[in-house]
Amino acid sequence: MGGDFAPLEPLKGVLQYISDSNGLAHITLVGDESQIKNLVAQLKISSEHITIVHADQVIGMDESPTKALKEKQKSSISIGFHLLASGKIDAFVSAGNTGAMLVGALFTIKAIEGVIRPTISSVIPRENGKTGLILDVGLNADCKPEQLNQFAVMGSVYAQQILGIESPRVALLNVGEEEGKGNILVQATYPLLKENKHIHFIGNIEGRDILMDKADVMICEGFTGNVVLKMAESLYEVSERQNLRHEYFDRFNFEIYGGTPVLGVAKPVIIGHGISHAKAFMNMIFLAQKMIEKDLMNKMKKELEP
Amino acid sequence: MGGDFAPLEPLKGVLQYISDSNGLAHITLVGDESQIKNLVAQLKISSEHITIVHADQVIGMDESPTKALKEKQKSSISIGFHLLASGKIDAFVSAGNTGAMLVGALFTIKAIEGVIRPTISSVIPRENGKTGLILDVGLNADCKPEQLNQFAVMGSVYAQQILGIESPRVALLNVGEEEGKGNILVQATYPLLKENKHIHFIGNIEGRDILMDKADVMICEGFTGNVVLKMAESLYEVSERQNLRHEYFDRFNFEIYGGTPVLGVAKPVIIGHGISHAKAFMNMIFLAQKMIEKDLMNKMKKELEP
Repeated sequence: MGGDFAPLEPLKGVLQYISDSNGLAHITLVGDESQIKNLVAQLKISSEHITIVHADQVIGMDESPTKALKEKQKSSISIGFHLLASGKIDAFVSAGNTGAMLVGALFTIKAIEGVIRPTISSVIPRENGKTGLILDVGLNADCKPEQLNQFAVMGSVYAQQILGIESPRVALLNVGEEEGKGNILVQATYPLLKENKHIHFIGNIEGRDILMDKADVMICEGFTGNVVLKMAESLYEVSERQNLRHEYFDRFNFEIYGGTPVLGVAKPVIIGHGISHAKAFMNMIFLAQKMIEKDLMNKMKKELEP
Repeated sequence: MGGDFAPLEPLKGVLQYISDSNGLAHITLVGDESQIKNLVAQLKISSEHITIVHADQVIGMDESPTKALKEKQKSSISIGFHLLASGKIDAFVSAGNTGAMLVGALFTIKAIEGVIRPTISSVIPRENGKTGLILDVGLNADCKPEQLNQFAVMGSVYAQQILGIESPRVALLNVGEEEGKGNILVQATYPLLKENKHIHFIGNIEGRDILMDKADVMICEGFTGNVVLKMAESLYEVSERQNLRHEYFDRFNFEIYGGTPVLGVAKPVIIGHGISHAKAFMNMIFLAQKMIEKDLMNKMKKELEP
């Protein structure tokens, strides 16, 4: 039931996923049973690939996350997390209330052993066609150096396993290139990254390098990362409004990337944009599948060991 | 002698300024006397508008600011600050080593009474042709709420007096719109801005609003502000490389704005980009003139009183 175009677009996405994947994953659809049944029939989604779990309630896009999760235990998001926590599903994908998805992931799904705090990342399109990864992009507005050091490891494993970058270049987002630059947080983080044997640390990068192919994984606290991501997202809107159709700016339409996984929790939780259409839902399901196939969580756990 | 094209481009800028302003300000040129004399003759700059002060040394663009200022007391930057501090000139403009200009401004020029720390700002071009102001953009990587509250006042006075915005809308850069959002710093800053009678505070803005005409003055600590500014600057480079000539992206060529003043010091100090050409120098001199004509420093002082 999540997202601005639910349940039609999520179901269209499921249909596309089933056609493209030959139905490798079994999809549990959580939401209003009668609406879903009608659409499943209309779209001719084969019943062998899906299970419907009824949810009486929906958490609105503007509701307070913690309050809504507490009071709406029969919402599709609450039930989804319950199914995931109890092992009845292996991954949970939604374009619903972002805050509720985050709170649900943090409080109902265990963190990977050793993880101080989970994080959320975003891909950043590069001019050369590649994509970089930036994290944290808003889950942790205040961070300690040790957290940034863990984000570097989790981001690096994700870039390797999911984005297919063999030895991801990890960089610290900073206000200057030289070691010793920056605020207290990044000054204390730099030596940790430098000594971290689990990553390929290349030093500091600056704001001007974010859109360039300088680093594969860019590390920052969630305040700066969130501002950067939202500014990057706005470039697509600007280019649309300015009637500036250009391949590069089209790639700032973040819907095409599907959604962003919560990294550091023990099971795949993927959060899509509210405006997600069918393709985004299909991509989110493929991402969940890949995270499971690559055994991402265990690989992260292993790399996080000192 | 500052900037990549000194002393030719600064002198061309001086010539343009004199033609455009009818020589309202008298220009003291600090640098290598023989080079300057030759160029002044070549460019036919009338001697009635200028005074040449010889400087034996030049601080290179990559030198360590504090060390260079200490060791090169006969550099054009050191002498410039000496002239400004002693009242022999009323404003100091340079496109030289940015760090040395900042250190010089902070340690040789008094702060305006009551100012905790000076700040540097940048204009941000908007789609509708207007410009916004963002500060701090790198001078203060770690800030206290009281500093951000002062940046709001200084930015607001600057927007009013220099950018000509009657009642500048001041906003706090944050990760969400609602009060209470954000990291510890902005959570503590919000109530200060809300209660500040010297500004027109409109609340939080997000990264997606930076390029939009939502707020005239955008407040943040210097870490985030620096990342945002450098990312904005890179948009011009991206659009050039992508052969994407577009009026809006052309305005991200920050050279056209001249330079950025150090706000909060008692006399005008304006720092230009290293790549500044004649037009940028001319604009910096006009900016210095306007700051004096508008009595900007005294107006800031008045608004900073509780």
